[in-house]
Amino acid sequence: MTAKVVAVDVTDVRFPTSRELDGSDAMNEAPDYSAAYVVLRTDDAALPEGHGFTFTIGRGTELAVRAAQLVGERLRGMTVAELVGDLGGLWRHLTGDSQLRWLGPDKGVIHLGTAAVVNAVWDLAAKLAGQPLWRYLAGFSPQQLVDVVDWRYLRDALTPEAALELLARQEPGRTSRIEHLLRHGYPAYTTSAGWLGYDDAKLRRLCQEAVDAGWDAIKLKVGADLEADRRRCAIARSVLGPERRLMIDANQVLGVEEAVAWFRELAEFDVYWFEEPTSPDDVLGHAAIAARISPTLVATGEHTQNAVVFKQLFQAKALGVCQLDACRVGGVNEAVAVLLLAAAHGVPVCPHAGGVGLCELVQHLAMFDFVAVSGSMEGRMIEYVDHLHEHFVDPVRMRGSRYLAPTAPGYSARMRPESLAAHRFPDGPIWADTAQPAATTEGRGR
Amino acid sequence: MTAKVVAVDVTDVRFPTSRELDGSDAMNEAPDYSAAYVVLRTDDAALPEGHGFTFTIGRGTELAVRAAQLVGERLRGMTVAELVGDLGGLWRHLTGDSQLRWLGPDKGVIHLGTAAVVNAVWDLAAKLAGQPLWRYLAGFSPQQLVDVVDWRYLRDALTPEAALELLARQEPGRTSRIEHLLRHGYPAYTTSAGWLGYDDAKLRRLCQEAVDAGWDAIKLKVGADLEADRRRCAIARSVLGPERRLMIDANQVLGVEEAVAWFRELAEFDVYWFEEPTSPDDVLGHAAIAARISPTLVATGEHTQNAVVFKQLFQAKALGVCQLDACRVGGVNEAVAVLLLAAAHGVPVCPHAGGVGLCELVQHLAMFDFVAVSGSMEGRMIEYVDHLHEHFVDPVRMRGSRYLAPTAPGYSARMRPESLAAHRFPDGPIWADTAQPAATTEGRGR
Repeated sequence: MTAKVVAVDVTDVRFPTSRELDGSDAMNEAPDYSAAYVVLRTDDAALPEGHGFTFTIGRGTELAVRAAQLVGERLRGMTVAELVGDLGGLWRHLTGDSQLRWLGPDKGVIHLGTAAVVNAVWDLAAKLAGQPLWRYLAGFSPQQLVDVVDWRYLRDALTPEAALELLARQEPGRTSRIEHLLRHGYPAYTTSAGWLGYDDAKLRRLCQEAVDAGWDAIKLKVGADLEADRRRCAIARSVLGPERRLMIDANQVLGVEEAVAWFRELAEFDVYWFEEPTSPDDVLGHAAIAARISPTLVATGEHTQNAVVFKQLFQAKALGVCQLDACRVGGVNEAVAVLLLAAAHGVPVCPHAGGVGLCELVQHLAMFDFVAVSGSMEGRMIEYVDHLHEHFVDPVRMRGSRYLAPTAPGYSARMRPESLAAHRFPDGPIWADTAQPAATTEGRGR
Repeated sequence: MTAKVVAVDVTDVRFPTSRELDGSDAMNEAPDYSAAYVVLRTDDAALPEGHGFTFTIGRGTELAVRAAQLVGERLRGMTVAELVGDLGGLWRHLTGDSQLRWLGPDKGVIHLGTAAVVNAVWDLAAKLAGQPLWRYLAGFSPQQLVDVVDWRYLRDALTPEAALELLARQEPGRTSRIEHLLRHGYPAYTTSAGWLGYDDAKLRRLCQEAVDAGWDAIKLKVGADLEADRRRCAIARSVLGPERRLMIDANQVLGVEEAVAWFRELAEFDVYWFEEPTSPDDVLGHAAIAARISPTLVATGEHTQNAVVFKQLFQAKALGVCQLDACRVGGVNEAVAVLLLAAAHGVPVCPHAGGVGLCELVQHLAMFDFVAVSGSMEGRMIEYVDHLHEHFVDPVRMRGSRYLAPTAPGYSARMRPESLAAHRFPDGPIWADTAQPAATTEGRGR
C-alpha cells in the first residue's frame, strides 16, 4: 500500500462503427464509438494496473484524452493507500482543481476525463480486494458507502443521515441477493434491433431474432421522420406481440411541445417508456412531458451531466426511469450518489449501455444497486447492445436476456492489447488508411 | 463576399493573475486568467480578420483551444457570404457536428470552443458592416434577430412569434436609445474591491477609493468563512453608507440549505443580490433560495451553460438578476436567445464581466439589450473589473461608473500582438521561466 502512482497513461481508441451505421439515431447519424482509455500504474510491478475509460463517439475524443491526463496528474505520487483508503476524499481531490473546474464545472469534457480516471482507481481498488466491483462495493458498510459521495449539493434532496438509514434497511438482505444474482443474473433489454439506419426488412428480422432469443423488451430509435416511426413501431409491435415491452428513444431531437405531439402519434403502439424526448438539460421540460404522457414513462440519463441534475429530475418527478451512465457522471462515486438519490425517490435505475464497454461497466452498478441500495429488480433492466464486447478481456456474459454476474476482480474495464493497438487513433492500422474518421457532412437539421 | 475562410488560428494565452490573488474567491483560490483566442482569416487580404475568444482560468486552457480548433474546422472553405448571410444557420452548423456534440452537448469545453469561434464570426460580420457589434445587432430587423436564435429547445418558454412581437414593440424607440447610449453610456458596478484574497485594510481602502470615484454599487466575495464575511460586509457597508448597493457572491461553494442559512447571517448588511449561492446546475435549488431570501435577489449566470438552463431559471422564477456571460454560452447567437428569454420573463440582465476581455464583450450585449430587446436600464448594470484591459486594442472606456459606448467596428475582442506574444502558453516569456502555472496545491475543501 506504500506503492506510488507513477503513470496515468491515456489512449485515444476509436472503432469505425459509422461504416455500418451501428449506433445510428436521430441525433447521431454516424458515430464512431470511441474511448479515452486510462491505465493507472504504480511503482510496484507486483500490483495490478487500474483500467478505466470514458465513452465518446469519434471526433474530439482527444479532448477527453487530454482531460483525463490533466485530472490524472493529480494522482501522481499518491500512495495506493491514499488512493483506496478514502475514495470519497479522492473524488473530491480529483474534481477539486479550481482551474480545471472552471471548464465544467462537473460536466462535459472535463467530467468525462474525471470519469475515466475515477473508474480506473475503482478498478484498481476492487482488484486489490480481489473482487468484482459490484461485490467490492456490496462489502462496504452503509457508512462507508455514504462517505463515498460528495454531498455538497445534494443535501436538500437527500441527507447523508437518510441515505444511511436507507442503506441500513437493505443490509440484512445483501447475502441472499448476492446469491440470487450469482444464480439468476440480472434482466436486460436490447437496443441492437432498432438503430435508425436499419431498413424495415432488417428491423423486422432483428426484432424476430430478438424475440426468438428470449428478449421481452426492445428499444427503437425514433424522432427523425414521424411516418417512418409509425411504420417501424408497427413492425416492432407486430413482431413483439401484445405482451413484450416496446420502448422508443428520440435522442434529444425534439422540443417539449413537439415531443408530446410526437409521442401521441406513437402511443397506440403501447410504448413502455419514451427516452430522451428533449434536451438532457431540461429538467422542467421532462417534468412537463412526464405529466402529459403518463402512464408511459419518461426515461433519460445517458447525457445527464451530474448528480445535481439527476437530483432535480427526481425532485421534479420528471423521470420514470433513471438511465445512469457509468462515464457521463464522474465515475463510480457519483454513480453511487445517483443510485442513492434514485432509491430515495422511488425511481428504478435502468442504466444506459452500449457504446464501447458501457455494458461491461454498468452491470456492476445495477448489481450493486440490487444488493445494497434499492434491493429490487422490479421495473429494472440493463440496456444491452451486441457489439464491441470482443475487445474486452472480461466481456459481459449473457444467458438469454440476462446479464450473468461478473466474477473476475475489478470493473471489467480492461481492453485487449491487440484491440488497443489496432484501433488507436490516429496511428492504429484501422485508421492509418483514412487519416481522419468520416468527414463532417451532417448538419444540425431541423 | 466570395472570399473563403482559410484559417481559424487558436492561441493559448494566459495571464499570471494568481501571483497577486486578483480574482480570488471562495471557489477559485488562485486563478490565472486565460483565453482560447481565435483569429479567423480569409483568402482576401483586403478583408478584416475576425477575432474572438473564450475565457478560462489557467490549467486546461489547451482543451478550450483544441475545442475551438475542432469547431473552427467546420468554417474552412466557407465563403464570407455564407458566414454572415445566415448567422442563425451558421450557429446551427457549428454546433451540429454530432460527434462533437456528444462531448457536451452545448456545455463545458466544447461549448467554450464554440463561443470563441462564434464570437470571431460576429466580430468579422460587424467589421464588414463597419459598426461596433451592439449597433450592428441593433440594425437587424425583429425577424432577422429572431432568425439568429436556435429555437429547438426554447419554444415552451418563448415562441419565435412572441419574440417577434417583443422586438417589434421596442423598434420605434431604438434611435433615441442609441442617442442616449452615445451621450450617457451604460451603468456599471465594481468587483475590483472585494476579492477574497485581499485583507481588511486593502478591502477598506479599495471600497473608499471606489466610493470616491463615484461607484454606487460594489460586490464582495463571500462563502469561505462566515465570521470573516460578517466582518468584511460590515467594513463595506460602513464605507458605502446606507444608500449605495452592496452585493455578495459565494461562487457556488454552498448547498441550498446552507446558502439560506449563510445569507441570513449577512442580511443585516442590506444585501442587494446574492450571487452564485450554490451549484450553477441547480435550477430548483436557486428557486428555493430565491423564495426564501426575498426581497434580496438571487443572481447567477457566469457558469450557466446554455439557453436551456437559463430558460428554466426564468420559468422557475429562480433568478432576480441574469448574469449572462459572453463566452460560457455559445457566443452571440445564444446570448441573443438569453436576452430575449430574460426580457420576456421580466428579468434584468447584468452581464458577468471581468476575466480576460469579458468587459470588452458584454458591453455590446448590454447595450444591444437596451436598444432593441428590453428597452430599459432599470435594475441593470454591467460588472466592471479593473484589470487586463491594457491587453486589448479597443479596451472599454469608462466615465466614472459608466461604460461609454464603443465606436470602433467589431466586438472589441482583439488583443494586442505584443500581449499575445508575451503571454502565449507555454512558450511566451511570461511563462518560459516557470514552465507551468502555479502548482496544483488546492483541494476541494469542505
